Amino acid sequence: MVSAQSLDLSGTASGGLVYDSDATDGTVFTSSEVNFVITGAGQTDGGLTFGAFVDIDEAGIDDAEVFLSGRFGTITLGGIDPATDGFGIDDIGFSGLGVDDVAEQFKNATAGADVRYSYAAGGVTIVASAEIGDETSYGVAAEYDAGALSLGIGYVDDTNDGNSAVSVTAGYSFGRVAVNGLYSDWSAGSQGYGLDVSVNTGAATVTAAWAQATGTAADPEDGIGDAYGLGLSLPVSDGLTVSGGLGLIETDAVTDGSRTVADFGVTMNF
Amino acid sequence: MVSAQSLDLSGTASGGLVYDSDATDGTVFTSSEVNFVITGAGQTDGGLTFGAFVDIDEAGIDDAEVFLSGRFGTITLGGIDPATDGFGIDDIGFSGLGVDDVAEQFKNATAGADVRYSYAAGGVTIVASAEIGDETSYGVAAEYDAGALSLGIGYVDDTNDGNSAVSVTAGYSFGRVAVNGLYSDWSAGSQGYGLDVSVNTGAATVTAAWAQATGTAADPEDGIGDAYGLGLSLPVSDGLTVSGGLGLIETDAVTDGSRTVADFGVTMNF
Amino acid sequence: MVSAQSLDLSGTASGGLVYDSDATDGTVFTSSEVNFVITGAGQTDGGLTFGAFVDIDEAGIDDAEVFLSGRFGTITLGGIDPATDGFGIDDIGFSGLGVDDVAEQFKNATAGADVRYSYAAGGVTIVASAEIGDETSYGVAAEYDAGALSLGIGYVDDTNDGNSAVSVTAGYSFGRVAVNGLYSDWSAGSQGYGLDVSVNTGAATVTAAWAQATGTAADPEDGIGDAYGLGLSLPVSDGLTVSGGLGLIETDAVTDGSRTVADFGVTMNF
Repeated sequence: MVSAQSLDLSGTASGGLVYDSDATDGTVFTSSEVNFVITGAGQTDGGLTFGAFVDIDEAGIDDAEVFLSGRFGTITLGGIDPATDGFGIDDIGFSGLGVDDVAEQFKNATAGADVRYSYAAGGVTIVASAEIGDETSYGVAAEYDAGALSLGIGYVDDTNDGNSAVSVTAGYSFGRVAVNGLYSDWSAGSQGYGLDVSVNTGAATVTAAWAQATGTAADPEDGIGDAYGLGLSLPVSDGLTVSGGLGLIETDAVTDGSRTVADFGVTMNF
Repeated sequence: MVSAQSLDLSGTASGGLVYDSDATDGTVFTSSEVNFVITGAGQTDGGLTFGAFVDIDEAGIDDAEVFLSGRFGTITLGGIDPATDGFGIDDIGFSGLGVDDVAEQFKNATAGADVRYSYAAGGVTIVASAEIGDETSYGVAAEYDAGALSLGIGYVDDTNDGNSAVSVTAGYSFGRVAVNGLYSDWSAGSQGYGLDVSVNTGAATVTAAWAQATGTAADPEDGIGDAYGLGLSLPVSDGLTVSGGLGLIETDAVTDGSRTVADFGVTMNF
Repeated sequence: MVSAQSLDLSGTASGGLVYDSDATDGTVFTSSEVNFVITGAGQTDGGLTFGAFVDIDEAGIDDAEVFLSGRFGTITLGGIDPATDGFGIDDIGFSGLGVDDVAEQFKNATAGADVRYSYAAGGVTIVASAEIGDETSYGVAAEYDAGALSLGIGYVDDTNDGNSAVSVTAGYSFGRVAVNGLYSDWSAGSQGYGLDVSVNTGAATVTAAWAQATGTAADPEDGIGDAYGLGLSLPVSDGLTVSGGLGLIETDAVTDGSRTVADFGVTMNF
């Protein structure tokens, strides 16, 4: 027996000001978040890696997962998301202004997940998720990453609620410019479209994003319609980035049809 | 003054699949748990040891205790259990299938605890617990450990609810075999009997357990009747063990009188 | 870019017995608390310091804050208190017997805070706080520390609830004796007066405190009237202190007009 266990701390935080033209009590307010992660991990003689973590945020325990990895891939239990949950477009602003959510609301159908399996080889990552027990659903996703080009396709099926979603994603980067898109088709008759374009000038990254939802909203807070965003991210040093964003949300979830959101603040990692 | 304070992290985790024939929503489901402990401790010139810890699990703060130790013994405050709480038989499976609970439901009567005192010398450990304030109860236990042989006797008295319990426990190990038993007599007219037998083959440990409750259930979820379990525990490396269990629970808490439970998974420590 | 990020653990704990003549269920009970803090921090080339922490106690997440410091001062977001919250007199006993609360209940008016700014130079510290968004209030405080002498003045204004408070504090230490006082005037027609005197004999510190509230109570649990306290604090070693206190609370919040409180226990830091 070999002892190669370790315990580790890591963390991220963010804080700043947020503007929301649709807020009922004061359109400007502060936002701050902390996330500290305690991770335990170990390795066996035979090449297995095992571990667990707990994610502590300002409100309590945000997530806890247990994993086991080997040549067969990685199995994870705990606070798991469906296989397609990683698909999406860039969020705008330090606090997440919600532009991306308009396009992303359909990708997981109404599925959850209890267990995830992933396997990566030769630039391809396969992810499968399943929800078992009181509710049942499953999901599969395949992602291909060739450096400048990335492609992904995924399917989730909420078998006990009887709905499913297919999503495709594609990204391409050329020099200082990166483009990334998402399309989701939900069996309830809805579609989500998202696109982001980033330009990294070296000193800063400017990101523009567009999202559209058609059909019936999966999340009433996101609604059906369009959303636009423009964000700026300026690394100050290792661990500290100044970020700001501006968004226009024009969905039927907005009282008068048009909502302006903006934020300015910092993000940190430790 | 001498500074000898320290802060330390430790952790355990488990995850796997559970089968329960009596489950209303899906008989197979996943189970995972994490437990990370932050401990602070220090020592004085005069030989006192002091410390505190908080136990963080996937749902929040599971436990927090403060202790002070010296030649006089150890006093502990916080999330304390009655003096007899350490008595019991082996649980079966990585997730705790509940076989042992049938026998153990009477050992603490209906008592809680706010403070614990323990003193150990010459293989004998004395534990006393008390609940003071809005509810009152007390407990005492003595355990003797002579290596191969261990004996314990305990008494708890819930003075404001007017009930008490006497428990005795005995264990003996010879070579690769260990036997351990528990008997509890609760003043409400109930008895709990438990027995486990473990065989450590070197590569793995096989454990068989039997539990019986007679009289009136202390915990309606455990009920009155018999429970049987068989478990296998296979250490893979330092920190990683594969475990599985099979249980048959035949108490009046089970809808149709007989419930089969099983699990298979891993336990980790960091 | 320079990497100078770090993660750190620290902690405090306390435990002991408390007596309260006014308690409805048992006048003697145990009290214990733990507080472990995970802190992440970093520095930039340009002299900025940034960081965040989360404070974990026995019940959950007690506090989380994010800060950014530079020559301009320090901005903090998260679980913030109004600028005047640091004003006060010594609490008595290891568990906080509440003598000080009688005098301190008016200092923050009914204001909260979302963001705090502080700047220190030449012994003077300026603190400003603001609550923005659904509720609005602000606060300013100035404190001067010249070693033996300390002075402070602060004002908080709960603009949407329409009340404010002015507070002044002064402290002076001469040899082994330290005196500290607080006066608060709340616009609702209430005043809080507090005084503490400490004598540090080298081996121990004895503290006497007096508090008085007149007008209308800001906190019904504190009430209007007088409170007196006497405390003893005895450092045993680095990290371990034995503390005890005795208090007499004679406010209209006490059922029969006079309540005796006492405690005895230990405080620890790691």
